Amino acid sequence: MSLLVVGSVAFDSVETPFGKVNDILGGSATYFSAVASLYTKVNLVAVVGTDFPMERLQFLTDRGVDTRGLQVMDGETFCWAARYNYETNTCETLDTRLNVFADFHPVLPEGYEQSDFVFLANIDPELQYEVLRQVPQARLTMLDTMDFWIHNKREALATAIGTVDVVTMNEGEARTFAGTYGTLPAAKTILNLGPKMVIIKQGEYGCAMVGEGGYFSVPACPLEDVKDPTGAGDTFAGGFLGYLDKVGEMTPQSIRRAIVHGCATASFTVEEFGVDRLRSLTLEDIAKRYQELHQCTHFEDG
Amino acid sequence: MSLLVVGSVAFDSVETPFGKVNDILGGSATYFSAVASLYTKVNLVAVVGTDFPMERLQFLTDRGVDTRGLQVMDGETFCWAARYNYETNTCETLDTRLNVFADFHPVLPEGYEQSDFVFLANIDPELQYEVLRQVPQARLTMLDTMDFWIHNKREALATAIGTVDVVTMNEGEARTFAGTYGTLPAAKTILNLGPKMVIIKQGEYGCAMVGEGGYFSVPACPLEDVKDPTGAGDTFAGGFLGYLDKVGEMTPQSIRRAIVHGCATASFTVEEFGVDRLRSLTLEDIAKRYQELHQCTHFEDG
Repeated sequence: MSLLVVGSVAFDSVETPFGKVNDILGGSATYFSAVASLYTKVNLVAVVGTDFPMERLQFLTDRGVDTRGLQVMDGETFCWAARYNYETNTCETLDTRLNVFADFHPVLPEGYEQSDFVFLANIDPELQYEVLRQVPQARLTMLDTMDFWIHNKREALATAIGTVDVVTMNEGEARTFAGTYGTLPAAKTILNLGPKMVIIKQGEYGCAMVGEGGYFSVPACPLEDVKDPTGAGDTFAGGFLGYLDKVGEMTPQSIRRAIVHGCATASFTVEEFGVDRLRSLTLEDIAKRYQELHQCTHFEDG
Repeated sequence: MSLLVVGSVAFDSVETPFGKVNDILGGSATYFSAVASLYTKVNLVAVVGTDFPMERLQFLTDRGVDTRGLQVMDGETFCWAARYNYETNTCETLDTRLNVFADFHPVLPEGYEQSDFVFLANIDPELQYEVLRQVPQARLTMLDTMDFWIHNKREALATAIGTVDVVTMNEGEARTFAGTYGTLPAAKTILNLGPKMVIIKQGEYGCAMVGEGGYFSVPACPLEDVKDPTGAGDTFAGGFLGYLDKVGEMTPQSIRRAIVHGCATASFTVEEFGVDRLRSLTLEDIAKRYQELHQCTHFEDG
């Protein structure tokens, strides 16, 4: 089995109450692959500029990630800078330089179209749709998005949403997209466009799934410190799809377990800046945190 | 078994995106009793002015609430007015007229001091401490508080916290009290003052318990609409303590079940303005929602 991810590889500069880092390895495809590759074979599609030091992705190729889909274009790599304020629970984007990412056009190397599971990170919904049409045999497709596309490419986003199996959004984005206060009505609005399942990411509160299999809610792992929330959503997706690809079954219970795997993996991401914590992460670490999540949510029936 | 509540009976005026009501029945002791009385015998201590129409509490006395502890003082009843904005997730207090509540001094009628469980709603922590010293035989005592006391009577609040078994606070209040971003560190700071358990109320995200019995997190029930969040915390406490008093045991598992009962009861409160939904509420309704919460949080071990 294998998993396709289409997203970004980037240089991130991040400031949080716990520190500041400059030009570290980031990007949705990076975070996703770092985790998903613990479970299964990952096929990566992204773009970097000629300034990108390829050795930075060595830890991914060491985990078997196929990087034939990583394009190298003339120009500079995508750069993103942001500041998190935990007091106000906000993320302020300080700088976005798309650079080569502005002209990104995903191309699937031979064999990638056979991927069983597909994750389309928060890229232009027109590109997401383009990729979706190339993987008609995929067992499960999933897309993420962001405020920018909700505001500027709403129609294209609705089309892409109507084509995938699973939609994941931050809670605020889902409410914005649906134009409603409530999270449940927002999820239902999205479901009405066609996907089988919507997963609403609620940051420090975990996530909620609405769709076939009913409603499922799981809290985030209780953590002493959150050093850097960057990449939590992408690693959630990596744990979720990675687990499903590994176990090979999609029952309501295995989907719930996959969501908990997503929460568990995301909880490691935020403990350190960038992908630092993920470099040494193992499936045993994730299994242990899965048990902790079970322990801190379990209560008796009736 | 019986349960003592010391808090307010008030006139509330509330505006939410779903409507507006004026001078309806409110107050922490009212909300708490409305729910706790479904489970057990409730002894109420509060104060109203001579303007208060006693028939408004008829539905509580019909449920067996002992109102001998309700003082009637010369003057007007406590009035509170607020506006909720669901877009910004804020509650703006528009008006607070303490009136007779400013001179409230809780007096326990004969027999009340034998109550097994005690809830001290968010009144002056000096009064909370005064009551606590009169119920040394209680099996479990619990207090709530609010920003005003955290800012203005911090020492007295710390003393009261050091004397009760269970502390409940809104998440923002707990962070403010502890001076930390994280919810888990905030709860631990409060635990260090002496209580056995801290329950952090997270509004639409449910609640988290930290203490003996480890960490436990339960989401709020998924609701289509939240018409009026007023009283959610007090009815949470009513369901929590009411259940414990009814079952008479305090094991880690029964405490978890009690917390879920609290979440289930609170979910009914917010479906209508004021205590409207609680008038017809039954233990069967609560049991059904308990099952729903179990269903939407359950996942398999391992």
